Amino acid sequence: MCTSVLYKNGKYSYFGRNLDLQYKLGNDVTVCPRNYVLKFRHLEDMPVHSAIVGMALTGYGYPLFFEGVNEYGVGAASLNFPNYGQYNTELEEGKKNVTSFELIPYLLSSCRNLDDVRKELAEINLVADDFNEKVKSVPLHWICCDKKGSIVVERTATGLHVYENDVNVLANAPEYPAQAVNFANYLNLTAEYPENRIVPHLDVPFYSSGMGSDGLPGGLDSMSRFVRAAFMMNNSKAKETDAATLNQFFRIMQTVEQIDGANHEKDGFYEITNYTAGANLDTMDFYWTTYDNQQINAIHTKDLDLDQSELIIYPVGHEQNINWVR
Amino acid sequence: MCTSVLYKNGKYSYFGRNLDLQYKLGNDVTVCPRNYVLKFRHLEDMPVHSAIVGMALTGYGYPLFFEGVNEYGVGAASLNFPNYGQYNTELEEGKKNVTSFELIPYLLSSCRNLDDVRKELAEINLVADDFNEKVKSVPLHWICCDKKGSIVVERTATGLHVYENDVNVLANAPEYPAQAVNFANYLNLTAEYPENRIVPHLDVPFYSSGMGSDGLPGGLDSMSRFVRAAFMMNNSKAKETDAATLNQFFRIMQTVEQIDGANHEKDGFYEITNYTAGANLDTMDFYWTTYDNQQINAIHTKDLDLDQSELIIYPVGHEQNINWVR
Amino acid sequence: MCTSVLYKNGKYSYFGRNLDLQYKLGNDVTVCPRNYVLKFRHLEDMPVHSAIVGMALTGYGYPLFFEGVNEYGVGAASLNFPNYGQYNTELEEGKKNVTSFELIPYLLSSCRNLDDVRKELAEINLVADDFNEKVKSVPLHWICCDKKGSIVVERTATGLHVYENDVNVLANAPEYPAQAVNFANYLNLTAEYPENRIVPHLDVPFYSSGMGSDGLPGGLDSMSRFVRAAFMMNNSKAKETDAATLNQFFRIMQTVEQIDGANHEKDGFYEITNYTAGANLDTMDFYWTTYDNQQINAIHTKDLDLDQSELIIYPVGHEQNINWVR
Amino acid sequence: MCTSVLYKNGKYSYFGRNLDLQYKLGNDVTVCPRNYVLKFRHLEDMPVHSAIVGMALTGYGYPLFFEGVNEYGVGAASLNFPNYGQYNTELEEGKKNVTSFELIPYLLSSCRNLDDVRKELAEINLVADDFNEKVKSVPLHWICCDKKGSIVVERTATGLHVYENDVNVLANAPEYPAQAVNFANYLNLTAEYPENRIVPHLDVPFYSSGMGSDGLPGGLDSMSRFVRAAFMMNNSKAKETDAATLNQFFRIMQTVEQIDGANHEKDGFYEITNYTAGANLDTMDFYWTTYDNQQINAIHTKDLDLDQSELIIYPVGHEQNINWVR
Repeated sequence: MCTSVLYKNGKYSYFGRNLDLQYKLGNDVTVCPRNYVLKFRHLEDMPVHSAIVGMALTGYGYPLFFEGVNEYGVGAASLNFPNYGQYNTELEEGKKNVTSFELIPYLLSSCRNLDDVRKELAEINLVADDFNEKVKSVPLHWICCDKKGSIVVERTATGLHVYENDVNVLANAPEYPAQAVNFANYLNLTAEYPENRIVPHLDVPFYSSGMGSDGLPGGLDSMSRFVRAAFMMNNSKAKETDAATLNQFFRIMQTVEQIDGANHEKDGFYEITNYTAGANLDTMDFYWTTYDNQQINAIHTKDLDLDQSELIIYPVGHEQNINWVR
Repeated sequence: MCTSVLYKNGKYSYFGRNLDLQYKLGNDVTVCPRNYVLKFRHLEDMPVHSAIVGMALTGYGYPLFFEGVNEYGVGAASLNFPNYGQYNTELEEGKKNVTSFELIPYLLSSCRNLDDVRKELAEINLVADDFNEKVKSVPLHWICCDKKGSIVVERTATGLHVYENDVNVLANAPEYPAQAVNFANYLNLTAEYPENRIVPHLDVPFYSSGMGSDGLPGGLDSMSRFVRAAFMMNNSKAKETDAATLNQFFRIMQTVEQIDGANHEKDGFYEITNYTAGANLDTMDFYWTTYDNQQINAIHTKDLDLDQSELIIYPVGHEQNINWVR
Repeated sequence: MCTSVLYKNGKYSYFGRNLDLQYKLGNDVTVCPRNYVLKFRHLEDMPVHSAIVGMALTGYGYPLFFEGVNEYGVGAASLNFPNYGQYNTELEEGKKNVTSFELIPYLLSSCRNLDDVRKELAEINLVADDFNEKVKSVPLHWICCDKKGSIVVERTATGLHVYENDVNVLANAPEYPAQAVNFANYLNLTAEYPENRIVPHLDVPFYSSGMGSDGLPGGLDSMSRFVRAAFMMNNSKAKETDAATLNQFFRIMQTVEQIDGANHEKDGFYEITNYTAGANLDTMDFYWTTYDNQQINAIHTKDLDLDQSELIIYPVGHEQNINWVR
Repeated sequence: MCTSVLYKNGKYSYFGRNLDLQYKLGNDVTVCPRNYVLKFRHLEDMPVHSAIVGMALTGYGYPLFFEGVNEYGVGAASLNFPNYGQYNTELEEGKKNVTSFELIPYLLSSCRNLDDVRKELAEINLVADDFNEKVKSVPLHWICCDKKGSIVVERTATGLHVYENDVNVLANAPEYPAQAVNFANYLNLTAEYPENRIVPHLDVPFYSSGMGSDGLPGGLDSMSRFVRAAFMMNNSKAKETDAATLNQFFRIMQTVEQIDGANHEKDGFYEITNYTAGANLDTMDFYWTTYDNQQINAIHTKDLDLDQSELIIYPVGHEQNINWVR
């Protein structure tokens, strides 16, 4: 499944995600420039809009973004939300009827900050349209952010919910409130040098460093990944440089990586972290690694011609790029 | 602290480790060629021996290896073993008196397989000499391997112990037997698609994939790292190619990485994974990443002049090497 | 806080609870006979109704039941639900406006099975009235049952929710759906003799019996108690006799007991299990122990004059009754 | 399997245990008076000695004590120690050769405090004799105590080990040092009112009381029971009265009780807590409950004729003794 975070370190902010799946989706690094005509099922075409960068499926004549960041540092990522996600099967008049596969481009095309996102969401009716006969609608939920913070968007049987997300992490089901409550189950843990609290008047010898995090969940399920990412990221220390922040972002994401073989799916395949991708919310630089190539790849998005009308596409690359020292 | 593994995938075998510490040690990738004169405190000089590659401190006129691999695919790594490790303060006649900092070069200089290592260990008395006034002896234990398997070497208050290590993992204290017993605490977990076993006659809805590993420890302490690495590696699936095996080795090591900020040491610093290094036991190719540069660096050890008499040294590099795509 | 269960064993059914609190409440075993006039704030008096037995505060001129069972084997228990429970501050016309302290007597006075309870709940508006200036309304939720099954009743910010409760357990916050999801985190555990699933091709020696439940939560918090009680009760085996069922009910409740000293409250006091009480849903016999007296006390409710109009009250007793053998 | 504790509360000390097994053993409350001739396999008969009270098998013409306490407040209990316990198959000259089934009567017959026990153990060679053809020697380890403290006695492949036991708890395998190390895995937990330590700068709402113990192990295996009993007992608060101390002793033992159905043994039977028994180390009063009768039974041991030469035997009783209130 997936994990997404907004990582803030002083003035640097990175937003990104792991995409975990048991097979490759064929996604590309995709830039949707300002004059690419964005079409919507139940809304008017948008011929001019903010540029967007992210991973997307591009083979269907429409950028099916898994996550994206726009020129204003607004980001959004969709994550699998099985059993819980439920879109409206009815259009609503007076609402903006947006499909699940349109939500990322819709929000990123116009919003300049998280407040804009909140306002848009208040008017949106998330509808259940399939993209086409083959590409069906799947239950998703979203994390949206700007440089300051993030929210979670969930459309369940009880309607559309928007949650403030102080932890700045999203994984998969269950709903965000249940994930947040579960986080409290680990409140005794600490990133600090621990002390013996279990029986203070006894001598309880420590056998290792790092025992403050003894008890942290290490599973590959979504609740364990939520807690682990939240602990690692919200206790993170890194130099306040872009390089250190970028590196730390990828290190954090590695703590919730899916290792080939450790997560057997019902269909007989093993889930892996297909890719890890993140963007600097100030510069719009976009970075990624794939399961098979752990060197960080990147593009300077703003150096591209963002005024053109065609999608700009880069393959992600699956060949390990080793630096052979001689 | 540290984690070390022997990862076998079909005919490919990688041996390596994470070195976790709250400060940089100044280690270099170091090749000790065949004619470098290896000196020992209580044994005769060894002017000719197997070549060895590994990370080492080289500034002291002696290769202080943290881990190494020789031309025959024999490997050894030392890991911190505080409170438990205890060397003999007395020399023993009739024994080979070897100091803790000499054990890796001693074993790798002559052993051609793990049986050779076992035989040497039967004759060794591990003694407590400091390297010098500044570089004191520290309590360590070792994992030694060839392509087929590994053992653990621990010198405690009760003497020198050699344990067969079917799990092929070593972390830090407590002793290996206690680590192995603790592993059994997680016997209910599975890499397979799980089933509801807790109350089979009730409907217990799964909320996520990966719930077979729900309950795995995620802490940064040595017992949690041992279990996590053991679970990930021993359930690992990877194509039987060198590239896939190498990649999987690094992915496995990332599951037990120390993230800056999450492990506050008593001295006020934060432990991080200084480097991850591993060698292909067939080719002697040596690979590494550092905390700040996650691209894999490598040398073809056997392409070097291994008959020379001077150490061959490469800096590890701490600059992130990003592949900027244009 | 509290834990409540419906324990079914063949044709025997016991419904009861632990009441956990950091001080004694002064509750008595209380029988509300058929002709005791039950008064309600916003509904008409009920001069004739089913008899009810349970623990209650009786000093306020009204039976403030913590839990109760009626002549038809319908039971209801209220449990603390802080932060989540929220009653309607408005009366609703066309609804039956019932206060939190009236819900148990209201439901038990007329319902003859769980379907009756469901129907009543569909018409009820749970309102926020305090009992009096001193006895304020507190956030509660309820488990209601008959011999066949149980439901959970929660009035939160989003309204009144009724959940089917296949697990037949209730503890405290969070909401029942979050508790049920959390239960799935332990799906790998088993009451059966376990097998090595973590790495099946390795020899992982078991050190103890009972390792199928290794990983079960042992905390005194409500999520841990929910899972523990659910595991113990739903895997329970007992002879199909009344005596064995009764005994097993008390044994199950002991697994979620609060031990004096282990749970320090914010107010400086330590939470303990004030009492454990349960009723046979067929016979209406009512059984209880207190923290200080673990012998089971009991009354044959149906042997009492249930047609009278005054409450019948028994002190719970706090003296250990030891059987001194001579 | 079993759990044993020494519970000290001010001037009151109780020593006792749970005996967990999947079938009934036929044990009786047994007093071995001063003039009962204690016979030993490899030592001389002891015609006069301290009186001992405890549970024992008495049908074999010898008191096979599971645990016992003598007139001087010295106690000893044997617990199953499979895979680890290993007695000497050779007698040793110059040593006191004692069999596993003789150790409790041997130590309690003469020792007047724990120092006496330590001295005796220094001279003892624990030998492997079976009691008879049917009653074979089984691997056991022991907790021995006086009013001040306790030790653990383990005879393994590496010899006889005596460990100081500050925690005052013993369960089953693995060895005591591994149990003590494992206890440190829970050092972050607390009986105190907890605080948010996981991410102090975030608001992490507590959903329940008792969250300081969230993370405590709840399994029925020996490592979980050790930690749970150690946490509960060493944080225990009880009035400094005999009655409160006794009650608290039984409450602590209930936290590590085996519930029928939750622990399926290899042989197809379910382990239960056959009995819980404990003695006041000052008065020698002996108290017990059985799985089927949770009222506390007791004898005033010192009121008996302790100078006689025949065992004094009381059946444990398996009938629930309910206090029917009228």
